[in-house]
Amino acid sequence: MQVRVGGKPRPFRSVSFDASANAVCLIDQRLLPHRFRLVRTTSYEDTALAIREMTVRGAPAIAATAAYGLAQGVRAYSGKDRRTFSRYVRQVHRTLLEARPTAVDPAHSMAEVLAAMKQGRTIAEKQALALAAAEEFAHRSAEECRALGEQGLALVREGMGILTHCNAGWLACVDYGTATAPLYLAHARGLRFHVYCTETRPRSQGATLTAWELAQQGIPHTVIADTAAGLLMRSGRVDMVLVGSDRVLARTGDVTNKIGTYNLAVLARHHGIPFYVAVPLSTLDWSLDSAEQIPIEERAPSEVLGAWGVPQRPDAGQGSRLRPSQARRLYVRVANPGSPAWNPAFDVTPAALVTGILTPKGLYRPEQLWPHRPGLEGPFHL
Amino acid sequence: MQVRVGGKPRPFRSVSFDASANAVCLIDQRLLPHRFRLVRTTSYEDTALAIREMTVRGAPAIAATAAYGLAQGVRAYSGKDRRTFSRYVRQVHRTLLEARPTAVDPAHSMAEVLAAMKQGRTIAEKQALALAAAEEFAHRSAEECRALGEQGLALVREGMGILTHCNAGWLACVDYGTATAPLYLAHARGLRFHVYCTETRPRSQGATLTAWELAQQGIPHTVIADTAAGLLMRSGRVDMVLVGSDRVLARTGDVTNKIGTYNLAVLARHHGIPFYVAVPLSTLDWSLDSAEQIPIEERAPSEVLGAWGVPQRPDAGQGSRLRPSQARRLYVRVANPGSPAWNPAFDVTPAALVTGILTPKGLYRPEQLWPHRPGLEGPFHL
Repeated sequence: MQVRVGGKPRPFRSVSFDASANAVCLIDQRLLPHRFRLVRTTSYEDTALAIREMTVRGAPAIAATAAYGLAQGVRAYSGKDRRTFSRYVRQVHRTLLEARPTAVDPAHSMAEVLAAMKQGRTIAEKQALALAAAEEFAHRSAEECRALGEQGLALVREGMGILTHCNAGWLACVDYGTATAPLYLAHARGLRFHVYCTETRPRSQGATLTAWELAQQGIPHTVIADTAAGLLMRSGRVDMVLVGSDRVLARTGDVTNKIGTYNLAVLARHHGIPFYVAVPLSTLDWSLDSAEQIPIEERAPSEVLGAWGVPQRPDAGQGSRLRPSQARRLYVRVANPGSPAWNPAFDVTPAALVTGILTPKGLYRPEQLWPHRPGLEGPFHL
Repeated sequence: MQVRVGGKPRPFRSVSFDASANAVCLIDQRLLPHRFRLVRTTSYEDTALAIREMTVRGAPAIAATAAYGLAQGVRAYSGKDRRTFSRYVRQVHRTLLEARPTAVDPAHSMAEVLAAMKQGRTIAEKQALALAAAEEFAHRSAEECRALGEQGLALVREGMGILTHCNAGWLACVDYGTATAPLYLAHARGLRFHVYCTETRPRSQGATLTAWELAQQGIPHTVIADTAAGLLMRSGRVDMVLVGSDRVLARTGDVTNKIGTYNLAVLARHHGIPFYVAVPLSTLDWSLDSAEQIPIEERAPSEVLGAWGVPQRPDAGQGSRLRPSQARRLYVRVANPGSPAWNPAFDVTPAALVTGILTPKGLYRPEQLWPHRPGLEGPFHL
């Protein structure tokens, strides 16, 4: 998607590769939305560090970064001995895997790169195949989001008000995003609509990342406090809620997503507003048969008890330019010192509150996922 | 209510009067919850300034402060001439009235003081009557909240989970508070229960003031992000929602309160959880016949786009002591620079979602207010 650098929009992906410099190119997401900085890692160790330090975030974006990082490491090998090469490749693979040990997506993407390398006989062939496989992975990842956007185009109508939650945007993917993909494609086709971004406390990804993404594309949007969602819906300004998900149970249609999604689903049902969830196929979980089996991660209470931001005068003008200076974020304690907090990271929205699950293969009612099995081929047994 | 100063609990009112020093004693609410500081204003001009600068906040607390400020000014008069005295009293009254020109409560409380003074013949008599009337007003205000708490005692059961929103506590009143009054009385009677305070973005009064109040009384409580209310209710931990209100329409039972109250009412209904609203009689509006007539105040977008807090390390220990230093609050910009925000201060919860309205005269279903007319005497025509 595009980023306005120095006022001019330029196309970017959240992750890409510069083959001539053997460098992985990332957007430093830790500084957004206050500062836009590109990071070029020139060794696989630096790429692993960027994953570890969350310069890049979002499962699909991390997966592509790891695949590129593996190809980058493989290509840096200048020896001739194939046995040493094999040991070295294992070392590169392990380093990248350990950068985010609980993430499953980098393991999958790097497995694809390793499998492709098996087809090569010489070291040079393996190096070329590694890069091709990483590029293929990133390309497929972006294409899947674009397909999601095309499938969702029919949902976006001229003049609509659309409420979204947290960040299900292109920064977390390679491009297009999930919930944002239909919006970006509709905007590119000239449709006019308005997006409401809930702040999404405690980490405020809606007010920071989603608002930043929409501003870069020039899509009209408004940030609201999570508390204002009910009044906004009651005032008739929301025609659709569209969110992403971390895991959709294909057996039941239940949706796991950022804390607060369930609030919005209940409010949407109360107001008769359709509630859609956009996901790539890898987000469909075909194994679990009950949302009760999903552990809800609890994060540090400090997130609820405070906020991260850039010190500023409250009445400072809302300059839309990206300013490289004054972008150092600071943690401030908001809440009463000594009071405890509960900080669940996700909630589960039951299928009964979900109007539709948007996938790259089409739009399904939650109960249709299992019989139609999008993304699964042939008969299957679980 | 009590405040733990230096570890020891001491009784305080949010507003009181030291007759020997002719001083109004206030808790500086601008520094809470990070610092507890008492302010003694020794002239009516300083008292007016404290109202203007929001050292004191909350309609009943401001009303008592203005009444005391008027008595304070009147008592400071040392002349003998009654005509000069009258002019001087008008000047004191005007100064205090203009400190918060849109507030109606200080006008009412000062009218009571002026009416009482009419009963005195000499200046000395008028001065004594002014103080007696101000004390009477503050006492009545505190007693009304205590009566509210006694009426609400039946709602609080052993082992309950109670969700509250924003601050409807004693800081905003003279004592006891509104939604908090039943909790304080139940706690004093030895009942054990747990209170969940929603943060209440954008101004976070739940995480700051309500959490501070509950901590001072030693009532077990947990701060949650507004986004976590749905999951908390779904997990079965909330047995009752209890909030205050800025205005209850007696004709319809509709409730105006801090933004986000409506979200909680919809969520409570979805989960079959009772939803109560606690109000003093002065909050009942007998004139409006539709909530549509209530203008929703919109505040500065900067409140939604940022947060106020004390710079700290996120992993700093949660010391429960009040620390006089390090209490300077700072504004940080959280959201994407350039993105606009919508910041409605209140929402309206329709009577259909309200289980009961708790008043000092008893608990009413919303539709019972009009026929039973609590606080109104005799037949009335509107």
